Amino acid sequence: MVPVTTAPTQRLSPTLDPGRRLLRPALRDAVRSHLGPEMSRIAQYHLGWADAEGRPTGTWGGKMIRPNLALLSARAAGAADTDGLPAAVAVELVHNFSLLHDDIMDGDETRRGRETAWAVFGVPNAILAGDAMVTAATSALLASPAPGAGSAAASLMAATQRMIDGQTCDVAFERRDQVSLAECLRMARGKTGALLGCACALGADLVGAEQPLIDGLRAFGEHLGLAFQLVDDVLGIWGDTRSTGKQIGADLRVRKKSLPVVAALNAPGADELRALYLGSGPLPEHAVGRVADLVEQAGGRRWAQEEAARQTAAAEQSLAAAEMPDGVRGEFLEIAGFLLGRKL
Amino acid sequence: MVPVTTAPTQRLSPTLDPGRRLLRPALRDAVRSHLGPEMSRIAQYHLGWADAEGRPTGTWGGKMIRPNLALLSARAAGAADTDGLPAAVAVELVHNFSLLHDDIMDGDETRRGRETAWAVFGVPNAILAGDAMVTAATSALLASPAPGAGSAAASLMAATQRMIDGQTCDVAFERRDQVSLAECLRMARGKTGALLGCACALGADLVGAEQPLIDGLRAFGEHLGLAFQLVDDVLGIWGDTRSTGKQIGADLRVRKKSLPVVAALNAPGADELRALYLGSGPLPEHAVGRVADLVEQAGGRRWAQEEAARQTAAAEQSLAAAEMPDGVRGEFLEIAGFLLGRKL
Repeated sequence: MVPVTTAPTQRLSPTLDPGRRLLRPALRDAVRSHLGPEMSRIAQYHLGWADAEGRPTGTWGGKMIRPNLALLSARAAGAADTDGLPAAVAVELVHNFSLLHDDIMDGDETRRGRETAWAVFGVPNAILAGDAMVTAATSALLASPAPGAGSAAASLMAATQRMIDGQTCDVAFERRDQVSLAECLRMARGKTGALLGCACALGADLVGAEQPLIDGLRAFGEHLGLAFQLVDDVLGIWGDTRSTGKQIGADLRVRKKSLPVVAALNAPGADELRALYLGSGPLPEHAVGRVADLVEQAGGRRWAQEEAARQTAAAEQSLAAAEMPDGVRGEFLEIAGFLLGRKL
Repeated sequence: MVPVTTAPTQRLSPTLDPGRRLLRPALRDAVRSHLGPEMSRIAQYHLGWADAEGRPTGTWGGKMIRPNLALLSARAAGAADTDGLPAAVAVELVHNFSLLHDDIMDGDETRRGRETAWAVFGVPNAILAGDAMVTAATSALLASPAPGAGSAAASLMAATQRMIDGQTCDVAFERRDQVSLAECLRMARGKTGALLGCACALGADLVGAEQPLIDGLRAFGEHLGLAFQLVDDVLGIWGDTRSTGKQIGADLRVRKKSLPVVAALNAPGADELRALYLGSGPLPEHAVGRVADLVEQAGGRRWAQEEAARQTAAAEQSLAAAEMPDGVRGEFLEIAGFLLGRKL
């Protein structure tokens, strides 16, 4: 097992760059042709292309991991990456729909260093903009003449449903004192794994690939998604603000039931941790460090790192078993390594 | 032109009854198979089948107008109404997705005599339940082996996008002093016309009907939807609580920019109306009657009734021009008459 120790870097993987050049105009076209003018304005703000008045920012939000995986997925099936563009656009729209609605639910006022859409345009408009983006995702896929457009749209909706289910569990866990590790893993598989798995398979699905390739790519992405969530959860407790943008203890302050915490809460002798952590309202500042230590002492950090390594190994196995050109496999591994913050 | 004067009745059209018997198990299956367990619980509460604890109520919310139109639509194309079931289920899911999210945006605490979903389960869960329902709508359509499943799903998403755009305008109009009648009509065509037009065409689209039939049915439904909105807006000002459940002046109290009001605000000599109506916060109770009189004096009521009659006539023309069995045409007219509260 390979321990996951280094933090995700913000440096862009070279593999992501060509994809971004292809994706920008395609995503821009999709937003302009499938969303109404008002919703398009909010979507462009949320995506980082425009300011609140609709003026171009000249920048671009997000790392576009998922759409790049979708382009690679089409290439894995022997198609050109341009053939995978509708899948890439659709998966990025669904990802951003979830961010828009999650920011409302979590009451988060900033994202990527800017005010969130609901904070700028109000909750009703941000709800509608999310609705418009998930609707446009299906439209973008079904507008493709590719043989697998219907199958890809069905896969994307199934993954979206699992993602919604995962987010629902996350919301429900906040109010529960008892959450098992199995429940928490299922939540993370839905919330993070489902869409990442879908992204890795969607391009192949769209271009009409054989089912074993689609299934293998989806399994790769689902394991990768869970590994990413575990790494992200570790960083949410012990993370380094400079290299990740995440504040140390950020997840603990809001008493988040992340995977390492739930592992620790279910370990023997977690009485002090339970007494400190279960409750409502922000965790007092003086307790943050103590909780982090207790989670570590109970084995939550070690388990999360080991589980991330197991999931990473399972992702690599799934990828190795799927038939595709070696160059494409290498690029999948490069993006996975970028996502997990280390070479694979 | 036929003036629309009578109020929509709550008595069920006999045409709707057989459809309801077919629809209930299909909708129940779709909710259970496409939504996760938590979201299914909220959807079942919202749909009126279950109480907040998930216990069956033995009742059923809503009149199921749209899914019945979708079933008829399949029959218009010569198919059995069972062939139209995925279209019926999908359109009812989209309708209820919009109700769930609209209730949050409008802050409405009751619907159909019960607490709204957000009031019972909280805003995050109600946002997620709406998301789950619109996602399930596409899944339900794409799970159908019918030749037009992809085409129908694309049509449904296009209509949903127009509905979202209409709702966005409705939200934006609240804060604007100047709204033209053309803008207000466009908003109503999106908010109400698009999904009703889609419902009337979706069953035919799904079973692979010829494009002229699909287009004719959609035009019928869009005109009908606008006529319904005009009638509903008239009732929202001068309505009769006993026969419609709508409180007299309900729309005026919240300063809603409904069609008759916007017509009046744009008529010559609307200074007193503008002075009373434009502003924020609830309209003072003593002003409600005066505003209703001013809208009527400015011709807002008469215009809305005449426009409803014009839209009804256009709907009838579209239906007459579309080729279908006469019995099916008669049932479309019966549902339209039920919706508009009079015989057609």
